[in-house]
Amino acid sequence: MSSAHHPPSALFCRRCGHALERRIPDDGDTKVRGVCPACATIHYDNPLCVVGTVPYWGAHGEQVLLCLRNIEPRKGKWTLPAGFLELGETTAQGAARETDEEAGAKIEMGPLFSLMNVARVGQVHLYHLARLTSDRFTPGIETQEARLFTEAEVPWDEIAFTTVKVTLQRYFADRRAGVLGFHTADLD
Amino acid sequence: MSSAHHPPSALFCRRCGHALERRIPDDGDTKVRGVCPACATIHYDNPLCVVGTVPYWGAHGEQVLLCLRNIEPRKGKWTLPAGFLELGETTAQGAARETDEEAGAKIEMGPLFSLMNVARVGQVHLYHLARLTSDRFTPGIETQEARLFTEAEVPWDEIAFTTVKVTLQRYFADRRAGVLGFHTADLD
Repeated sequence: MSSAHHPPSALFCRRCGHALERRIPDDGDTKVRGVCPACATIHYDNPLCVVGTVPYWGAHGEQVLLCLRNIEPRKGKWTLPAGFLELGETTAQGAARETDEEAGAKIEMGPLFSLMNVARVGQVHLYHLARLTSDRFTPGIETQEARLFTEAEVPWDEIAFTTVKVTLQRYFADRRAGVLGFHTADLD
Repeated sequence: MSSAHHPPSALFCRRCGHALERRIPDDGDTKVRGVCPACATIHYDNPLCVVGTVPYWGAHGEQVLLCLRNIEPRKGKWTLPAGFLELGETTAQGAARETDEEAGAKIEMGPLFSLMNVARVGQVHLYHLARLTSDRFTPGIETQEARLFTEAEVPWDEIAFTTVKVTLQRYFADRRAGVLGFHTADLD
């Protein structure tokens, strides 16, 4: 994950700098927004997409790459490489960038594997499958260590985010069943 | 779609109203952001999620509900009900809200059917299947008309958005094949 969080609602106008009013706009909207009394710009707060990969290794994909987080939140916990989708990227492009930034892993990008709503924090998490083409990693500054784990080795109680845990559980279950699917979940 | 568009980058600080600098932040980031010289708040621009439904009717789902747009962009063109995901919603909840707002349609929400990246405009479009439980519709102010179409009746040259067209094509193809899948695409 990058260090960006969902910001609090804007207090000042992004276009002209005037203090905002909090009210329902006059355009038929039904929700309270930040509305600029000076230039009429309406400010929307929308959910963010978090994109990542399930990087796997081995003839049967029996090992996955996890990263030991070197930054808050959840410093010292293990995660799949993931972070906020940036403007101009597809989900696969964003997932590839995060996999490079956080693990320095060489991959062949695969299909979307999981989509999980984390509505409480205004996020949608999306993980792509990614076949590792090397088992040498060069983690970036956000990562203390990057290494491969079999299902039995995964530190299940030390996983940083629920969406990572659920995605890993689905991945190993699908591998046992012999077919990789697409999974959705709504998490708290 | 709601009337919200992807806004241009912020010129003034959302937190204190000071004019922003455009530069790479000092936190290890690699991209130019709006950075506040007064309070150090960093402003991120991120893609938006658009959520909607494929509302279907008939014993074999042979008809789909389309809405004739009453607002720009693409006023006078046909679309599936869809709009921007709001904070606090899951993709299914947002899709249900839009289906109610734009078509006044009664539905039973189904699984995610398509995810399409429209990276050029910074959007991810997500459509859920939705079984109509009534063929009476009460469109909102954003919609001139809401009606059912068979595949042969769909006004293919009058569809408002490429993601809608691709989703409808996949839907009817899956119906012919007898199994509804999950589809992804990257569109210009």
